[in-house]
Formats: sequence, C-alpha cells, structure tokens
Amino acid sequence: MATHTITLHPSNTTVAVPTGALITEALREAGLDVAQPCGGQGRCGRCAVVVEAGNVRRRSTIRLSGADLEAGYALACQTVIEGDATLLVPEQEKIERRLVTDKTARKVGVPFPYDPARDQTVRAFPLSLDEPTLTDTVDDYARLERSLAAHGIRNLDVPLPILQTLGPRLRDANWQVTAIVETDNWRRPDGPPRLIDLVGQSHGQAQGQSHGIAPTESGRADPRAGSPIYGVAIDIGTTTVTVYLVNLLTGEAVDAAAEYNGQIRRGEDVISRIIYASKNNGLGEMGALVRSTINEVIERLAQRNHVEQKQIYKATVVGNTTMMHLFLGLPPASIRLTPYIPTVNHPLPLLASDLGLDIHPLATVDCLPGVASYVGADITGGVLACGLAEADALTLFIDVGTNGEMVLGTRDWLVTCACSAGPAFEGAGVVCGMRATRGAIEEVWINSQTFEPTYRVIGETRPRGICGSGLISLVAELFITGVMDKSGNFDVGADPVSARTPRVRVGDHGPEYVVAWASETDTGRDIVLTKVDVDNLMRAKAAIYAGFTVLAQSVGVDLKDVERLLIGGAFGKYINVEKAVQIGLLPDMPWDRFNFLGNTAVMGAYMALLSREARAQIKAIAEKMTYIELSTDNTFYDAFTSALFLPHTDMGRFPTVAKIWGNGEREE
Amino acid sequence: MATHTITLHPSNTTVAVPTGALITEALREAGLDVAQPCGGQGRCGRCAVVVEAGNVRRRSTIRLSGADLEAGYALACQTVIEGDATLLVPEQEKIERRLVTDKTARKVGVPFPYDPARDQTVRAFPLSLDEPTLTDTVDDYARLERSLAAHGIRNLDVPLPILQTLGPRLRDANWQVTAIVETDNWRRPDGPPRLIDLVGQSHGQAQGQSHGIAPTESGRADPRAGSPIYGVAIDIGTTTVTVYLVNLLTGEAVDAAAEYNGQIRRGEDVISRIIYASKNNGLGEMGALVRSTINEVIERLAQRNHVEQKQIYKATVVGNTTMMHLFLGLPPASIRLTPYIPTVNHPLPLLASDLGLDIHPLATVDCLPGVASYVGADITGGVLACGLAEADALTLFIDVGTNGEMVLGTRDWLVTCACSAGPAFEGAGVVCGMRATRGAIEEVWINSQTFEPTYRVIGETRPRGICGSGLISLVAELFITGVMDKSGNFDVGADPVSARTPRVRVGDHGPEYVVAWASETDTGRDIVLTKVDVDNLMRAKAAIYAGFTVLAQSVGVDLKDVERLLIGGAFGKYINVEKAVQIGLLPDMPWDRFNFLGNTAVMGAYMALLSREARAQIKAIAEKMTYIELSTDNTFYDAFTSALFLPHTDMGRFPTVAKIWGNGEREE
Repeated sequence: MATHTITLHPSNTTVAVPTGALITEALREAGLDVAQPCGGQGRCGRCAVVVEAGNVRRRSTIRLSGADLEAGYALACQTVIEGDATLLVPEQEKIERRLVTDKTARKVGVPFPYDPARDQTVRAFPLSLDEPTLTDTVDDYARLERSLAAHGIRNLDVPLPILQTLGPRLRDANWQVTAIVETDNWRRPDGPPRLIDLVGQSHGQAQGQSHGIAPTESGRADPRAGSPIYGVAIDIGTTTVTVYLVNLLTGEAVDAAAEYNGQIRRGEDVISRIIYASKNNGLGEMGALVRSTINEVIERLAQRNHVEQKQIYKATVVGNTTMMHLFLGLPPASIRLTPYIPTVNHPLPLLASDLGLDIHPLATVDCLPGVASYVGADITGGVLACGLAEADALTLFIDVGTNGEMVLGTRDWLVTCACSAGPAFEGAGVVCGMRATRGAIEEVWINSQTFEPTYRVIGETRPRGICGSGLISLVAELFITGVMDKSGNFDVGADPVSARTPRVRVGDHGPEYVVAWASETDTGRDIVLTKVDVDNLMRAKAAIYAGFTVLAQSVGVDLKDVERLLIGGAFGKYINVEKAVQIGLLPDMPWDRFNFLGNTAVMGAYMALLSREARAQIKAIAEKMTYIELSTDNTFYDAFTSALFLPHTDMGRFPTVAKIWGNGEREE
Repeated sequence: MATHTITLHPSNTTVAVPTGALITEALREAGLDVAQPCGGQGRCGRCAVVVEAGNVRRRSTIRLSGADLEAGYALACQTVIEGDATLLVPEQEKIERRLVTDKTARKVGVPFPYDPARDQTVRAFPLSLDEPTLTDTVDDYARLERSLAAHGIRNLDVPLPILQTLGPRLRDANWQVTAIVETDNWRRPDGPPRLIDLVGQSHGQAQGQSHGIAPTESGRADPRAGSPIYGVAIDIGTTTVTVYLVNLLTGEAVDAAAEYNGQIRRGEDVISRIIYASKNNGLGEMGALVRSTINEVIERLAQRNHVEQKQIYKATVVGNTTMMHLFLGLPPASIRLTPYIPTVNHPLPLLASDLGLDIHPLATVDCLPGVASYVGADITGGVLACGLAEADALTLFIDVGTNGEMVLGTRDWLVTCACSAGPAFEGAGVVCGMRATRGAIEEVWINSQTFEPTYRVIGETRPRGICGSGLISLVAELFITGVMDKSGNFDVGADPVSARTPRVRVGDHGPEYVVAWASETDTGRDIVLTKVDVDNLMRAKAAIYAGFTVLAQSVGVDLKDVERLLIGGAFGKYINVEKAVQIGLLPDMPWDRFNFLGNTAVMGAYMALLSREARAQIKAIAEKMTYIELSTDNTFYDAFTSALFLPHTDMGRFPTVAKIWGNGEREE
C-alpha cells in the first residue's frame, strides 16, 4: 500500500501514513492528542484542522460552514488521506473548567450515627498471638485464626499474597500484629471473613509509621486503638470523577477531591464512549483512562492528608451503567443497541488489584448496583442519599446530565426511567456550545424592548461560547421577550423582531440570534444561537419533561401531586430554576418544593462505604425500582411531542410561566 | 571491590567476579548449571571442579580425599575466589534414571463407583438461554443465572475475566452455551457455585473442537453430553512429580506421567531445599522449578491424549509439607527450625492462574491437608488411598523416602510421626552412593566363603555407584556373611576377614569394602562402602525403626500385634523386603502381612479429585491424626539407640534374621 508524507504545522513534524488513513491517525502517529468529544463521529467539529496543501477526501463536513471549507478546514476524524499533504493543526483549546469540589471543600458530615463495631465490614483487630512451642505446634494460619476467635472471627480466608509472607510477618512482629479483616460483604453476609492485611508493631515502628497497636489492659481489642484504616467512595461521572477519603474508624469524610474523567478526550457523552470503546483496543484504553483519573485523585487525597494509599482498605464505586462497564473492562456495545442489555447491573465485590486501583491491593472494591442500561448505580446511590426510599410524601428525584434519569415514588414504591437528552445541556451539539469552562456565557438576560443581551461569563473574561446553563437561560429569555414563539421559531408574525434588531438574522445554519458580536468575543467570531440549536435544546428538554409525564402516568398520579422535587448532580448546582421552568424543562411548582442536593451519587457511595445496613438498602432500592423503558412505552412519544413547545402545548401545566408571558402582553 | 577473571575449561569461557565470590557463582555467571544435591552445604561433593591455576580459598574440603586435593579438586560451593583463576569443570553426569510410571503405564482403575452428578464438584451444564427482548431486559449475568437455576445452580459467582467477555460470548454463541461450574468445594460446602468457563457451540465448532452441546429432548442437562472436562491429580514428590490426567465425566484416569522434580539440582532432600529456598530469591527459583516440571508433565499428558490444557478444570495436589510450601511460594525456613512450624497445613483452594499452572486459569487447585511440618498431604492422601482409615485390624502404613513417615491405627484412631532418615536410602551422603539411575548397583549378593560379590546394575551396564536398594542389600549381605558385626564394624574378632580377601581394606575414609574394582567400573575408580557410609545407613534405618517403636508404645500396643504393614512410595517398589528386615529397617513379621501399594500419595489425590466425599474424608483423616513430635519424645532416643545395631539390640524382635544368622554359625 502506498504511504504518504504528512507535514504538520506549526510543529513542522512529518509522519508517514498509508493511503486511506484518517487525519486523526496521522496526528496520533505524530504524538498529538486530538480532542474528540463526539467520539470521532464528525458531530462536534472539535477536531478541525486546516489543509494547507495536498490530497485529502472529506467524508463528512456537517460541522463546517462554507467559509470554513473555503479556508481549508477539514474534520480530522472524517477526512481520508489520499496523497502527501501539509496540515495546520490549530492549538487545542486549553481545558480550564471550574472544579467545584476542590474549590469549595465543604466539610461533609457523617451522614448517620456511626459505630464501626456495628456498621463497618472492615475492621482492625490488635492481636497478641501465643508464640509456638514444641508442645503447641499448630501452624501459623491456625494460630492466627485461634487468636482472632476471641473477636468472633472464625474460618478466616487468608489470600495467597498474605499467606506467602505470613510466617515472616508474624515472627518479625514478635507475634504482636494488627489484623485488618473484612468480616463480610453483601455477597457473603455470613462470611467467611477475609484477611486484607497484617500489620506488625515492630514493622510499623521500623518505618516510622503510626501502625500503633494498643491492646487494652483487659487484652480485649479496641478497634479505634489499632492501625488507621481508610476507605474511598468513588463517583465515576461521565464528566467528573469525585472521590471521598473516609476514616473508617470515625466514619468521617476526611477530604474530597475531583478531576475530569480522562475519557472525555475520547467522547463527551456515553454513546460516543461506547462507540470508541467498541473499536480496536478502545475498551482497554477507556479503562486505563478512567483508572488513571481515579488513581490521580486518590494519590492527591492521600498525599495532602498524610495517608498511605495501602492504608485504604475498601472502596465503593458508583457511576452510570456505561461508566461501570468501562471501569470493569466489560464491553458496553450491547448497552447502546436494542434491547439495551448490560453485561451486569450488580457486579460482585472485586479486589483493587483486579482493577488496578492504587489502594491496598487486597481491598474490596464494591460497585453499587444499577437497575438497567440507563439507570445506574449513580441513581440508586442518589435515591439512598436523598432519602426518597424513606419518603412518606410523593417525591420526584432527578439527576440531569447527558442523560436525564429520574425516579418517582415513596417509601412503598419506586419507578424510574432515563431519557436520552443528548449532550445539548452540556454545551455539545450546539454551534457555539461549550462546557462550563472559563469563557463560557453562563447566564443571559434580554431587554424586551431593544432585544440587546446582557450576559455573565465564567472567569469574567471575553466570551468564547455558551454553556448549558447559559443556553437554558438564553432560550427562556428569547421566548419570554417574544424573539421566539412557542415552537421556537424566530422572527414570526406581523411585526418580526428582525426588523427591529440586527441580532436576529439568517446565517449559515438558518435563522439565528447573535448573543455576542465578534468584536467582543475571544474567538473573533460572532457567538450565535441558531434555529438548529434551539431545536436540539427543545428535543432535550421535551425528552426530560416527557419522562416526568410517563413516570407519573405509569403509576396514575399527577405531576402536580409531587410534594418534593429533589435535584441531584452538578447540573442542579448551576441551573437557574426559574429559567428551567420557563422553557418547560422542570415542572412548574412552588419553589419551596425544589431541593438541590449536589452530588447525591458520591453521597450514596459514602453511605454504603460506612454501613452494611446502607449497602443492603441500596441493594433493596435497586431491586424495588421498576424500570420503564421509554423506547417501548406508547405514551412517551405523545408526551414528548406535547412537550416540544415552550414551555409545553398545555400552558395550563405552567401557570407561573403563563402569567409572566401574559404580562409581556403576548396572549394569543 | 576488585574483580577477577575466571577462565573455565573445557568451554574456554571467561567471566569476571568480585573478590569473595564462590566458584558456584562464577559458574552460574557463565551459564553453567551446577548440580548441588546437598543445597550448597559441601556435604555431597557433587560440585567438585579442578583448580588448574590461580588464587582460591577452600572453606571446606570434607568430601574430598587427600588425592583429590592433590589433583587440584575444590568444592565449587565451598571455595572462595581471591584472584584470577583457571578452572576445569568436569562434565556433569547425565541424569538418566528409570521413570517407573511412564514405563509401566499401568491402567489405573476408577477407585469407586463414580457418579459425577453425585460426586463431582465441577460440572458441565449445556444451556439454552432466552434471547433478550425489549420486554425481557434482565442483564446477561442474571440471564445466565436464570438459565442455570433449572439445574439447581443459584447465586453464581462469575469471575471478572469471564464477566469481561460474557456479553460477546453469549451473543457469539447465539445464547447456546455450556457452563462449566464448580458447584462447591470443601471450603464452601454450600456454595456459592463459581463459573469456570463458558463454552459456546459455534465457538467450539469454529475451532474444530468437540465442545458439543447436546441438551436432551426434555431440555434437562445430561452432564455426559456436555463439553469434555478433565482434572489432574498431582503428587509433588521430593524426587519425582507424578500426574494423573482424569476424565471428570467418567472418572477414568486416562493417562499418567512422571518427571523428576526440577528442584533436585538445588538440593536432594527437603532440608537442602529449605536452605536453598531461604537464600536470595531461592524461594522464587524453587517455585519456578517445580511449576515448570508440573507443566511439562501436564503438557505431555495433554498432547498424547489430544486434550486441550484449558479443558482441565480442576487439580488436586499432594506432597510433603515442604514441597507444598515451595509450590505455593511460602517461605519454608520455620519448618526446619525448632519448634518446626509450617505456615499452613491445609491451604485454601486456589486458582491455577495464582500458581502458574498451565491448565484453565480459573481451575481450582486444591492442595490436600497435611498434619505437621513432616507429615504432609502425601501421607493423608496415602492413608485415604490405602484404606487405613477404614481398617478394622491394627495397621501400620509407611512411606519411606528421604524422610520416613508412618501412621499406625485403625478406623477409630490414627497416630503418626516422621523420622529424619536422611538421604542415605536415596544414595546421597554415601561416598559411592547415587540415585537409582542407569549405572547404579541395585542389588548385591556376597559369597560367604570367598566374600566375592555378585551385583545387578540398572541398565545392565558398567557400574558407577550404588543406589538405595543396593545399599540395603549390600549391608544386609555384609552382616549376614560376617564381614561386618552387629555394630557395623569391619574386620573384627580373632579371624578378621581382611586377612582372607583384599576387598576389606582401609581407605581414605577408614575401613571399607570394595564392591567393584576400578577395572570393571564406568568411572575407573573402585566402588566402595565405607564404615562412615555404614554408620549413615545405620542411623537412617535406626531412626525409622525407632519411629515404629515409639508409635506403638505411644498407644500401648506391640509391633508384633500389627496385622497389616502397608508400604507406599516408590521405595516400596524396589526394596528387597528380606534384606530390609535383615538390617532391621522393617519389622520382622510374616511376609503375607506386607503390602506394597506403589504411589499411594497420587492415588489419594486422584480420589479427592473425583469425589466430594473422598475429599471430606481426607480432611477428617488429617484432623483425626495425632502427631507425635519425636524430637520431644523421651522414648525416641532410647528406641533409636537400641536400633543402632544389625538388625537390633534385641535380637528377639527379629526371629527370622536370628535364624539365618545362626545358620551362618555366628551365634555369640
């Protein structure tokens, strides 16, 4: 096969690739890391490069304007090399986003009265073994078991790596050791207990560590006097990985930290990641990326809290079903294809060494149970954390990200569904969309007379695009001020707005509203919201609202009867509820019924980390939840179609919006 | 540190080593594999090299004669390099020993009526899963469990490596699979069952294999119709590793093979191996050596029986406690040091992948239980196989190798002890001793008039030395013909034999008897038995006989009351019982009470491989056996001292020997 020389500017490097290779392959060959938020599907346009010279074939130009094409732009993921070529690779945008957890570092309280002897499955037992003699010759293993029997631990499992050093460890420590034991787990409620580590007093002292062993005078163990033992609660979000470091003796969340999921560079949403993971070695790469993110966060937590990573003896993990599959190395392809079947919703407990987590290699890693391909452990964890499963009143819990997952119920029953909202609320799939990073317009106000906007930019800098909360805000303002009608059409009626402001115009992608002129932006281009973007956002919000409707209908209640609306996820932290109600994303109800809970997923993982009982509750929640698959639900399509308006076909569902809109004197 | 150049002949290679290095280190540096049967203690003399020139310091010369030293010999393991040197490395003897199992290839019968559905813990279940639909969306894992529930399998454990390919395996096989499941093991008598493999019909066909799936018409599984499933029973002997390949559907031992334990080159007896394993990385090397031997034997068995190694789903392992420790990578040092404590007598079930066995990586490897540091799983397995635990009559079971282990008892009680016989009976620690290889004198007869010997040599070639059975035979003949007295002294009394034959003389090591003159040997040297050798053999046989005595005394019975004497181990296959009784190694009793059973250890492993019940019996045997530690037993020393004669101080214990000896007219 012929090979071609590709010259890359500005680095001026050259690589050789065969005929038919994609430009992305040439870039990777040259060691350049190209962002592919859409997973290499040509949807996001983020991998655009300029073809300065040479022979290439553009398979898809969907995200490029006529001007872009004239300037030589091509999508690296969609362009085939057919001869020597010279390419200009624009500098990748530096991703600087606000990471909430590290900034706020709020103290998270122990969520319930905690007694490790009652609640915790990982315990530290200080032991003083009898030294063997010629008349007491039981083997080391049986001797350890005999000593643990005083603590009610019997039939101990000793994993091979510990067995292989058991003899020297006991002798070096002069038979004074602390045994770290997992007494049980959800899969083995009656044991057998498993030895995770054996820490010798002399060993600890020799290394200057605090592996103190302090049997009380009566010889009985005080678990708080033993070695420090820690756990981690991990939330693998599609966008952000969050970890709590927890002291298992006190139950306290010592610290928390977060980092962007390293998989983002291979796809922004779960569908893109499934597609990427289904390619050659994509699964292995996805696993390595998220593992490395988690390990970075754990290392940071350990260092700044002076904890040794090998003192972390337990982990609980939540995430959506796709994130769990990628973390566990399970091929996710069937999640995306009808009938949407995951490999497993409730994985068995595993070992840190199986998964490459940099904590004690024999620590249990417990992935909490999900319910279905699109309702994962982040939601069951969230239901536990938000208290829905113990609610007397009718409660709706939602967690909106790339997908909108929602649960309706009380202590007696739970129904759940997931809507494929798409990435619009995360700024993807929108011409000037971006993530909630520095330079993103996050809130917009429009003057109803002049139609001139005022906006707030993250980082108080020149704007580069619009993030999810900015988009919701902008659509709501365009609707309320009459720039758009209920269907999201610009410039309609007898007195079109375009006659009164140059901000409403027809651009490359059809009708659009200019939020910021090129002269005031960081990119030197206008920042606009197009009709196509509005349609995307309408579909996203309609899908979520239709989900609420179907859930309520499925159990024969009315959304109006919902007494509490609990909103989890980072989305809930930034969204302007008033605007979200105005576009019909959230139901119109008294504001005191809304509760913003932040990251309920990691909170659920934290509770499960602490308590055998909480862990059992999550399992019970997962088993109790009735999953409604919307793609087979006859009522969903109707509900979706009805919601494809601002805020809804049935204005009666949105009385407060009707009132504001009425004040604007646009009653029809 | 200064380094020196060592030139090695005949290969003419040179290596550089620092001052103070041993010659063994220089040889290893040069890639030469030196035999160290005694573990580098200078006891065996097998690593002798000739120092042609240069500066070395001999730390020990215990095994070299004055003539050897004059000729420049040095023990590589005991000689320190202090300057440049030139060494001649004699060609290593090629080890060619007779390997019984491969030669005889006796058909081993299924030891009891075998019904896999009742007896076997590893089963094959042909399954036809429901294909998922939008109204039947349970995950793959739960779907598999649902299908297995029809076979009574519930709460299945699916190990991560299978989970990681579960989705594609089920879909590629079009939901028609055979599940290989371990339903339980001794540690988990009530489960949960564990999936070992999932074999797809289409997969098997694509590879041209015989993974047939044949659900019967009723839809119920016939385990014999599923995939072939095999197991291996492994006996790790100090000298020989023996493996049975077993069809788990029929119970039949399809084939058996054996190979010398690769650890031999690092020490012939367990003590030497413990010492070697306690050196730098010695433990890792010992583990690798035995693993490699086992894998070679398994590969040979699989190839010649057209079995794929990944179709071997279960292994049982026996061996003495030290062999088990080295196999499992457990440091054995404490076995050798008072109070002789092993890390573990009864290891938990492990996975083949944990231990590097080349069978299915998720196969269970079940190491059978031992009793103490010197009574291992080879003995408990032997007790099961020989039927002692179900005997009505008083029975003595012995397994003599480097150590002599023995068990006395009936169905109601068992006592056991182990005597450190040393390696004399295996030809080590004796000047002209050798293993039972080609060239070894294995039987000797002495003319009582001329004192001229007749001997038989293994391989019918010129003799190179004397093996264990030859030594027993020779000592018995020397005693019976009056060349030696009851104390093992040569040439005593008024009419010394040395006056009548040149074969009795005084050599480098004191008095000796010449078995073969240099002119008739393969080595060009006389083959002799020295007084020192005789003393070694006397101590060995006295230790074993004293063991019998102490065992009998401990339970208040007389050796004469023993109704059956069961002899296990390869030793029993070659030994001449008459001669063994004549030297006082075995008790003098009617010959019809002796039973030679061959390798009872591997037979025990085979039975445990087949049957849950047999496995439970071995555990019960191990728990029932009372171990007597001879080093703390007051009666042992007296019994040993009394046995340090030919055949014993108390001739009344050996009436048939007294009679022969009397016929020789040497009544005293």
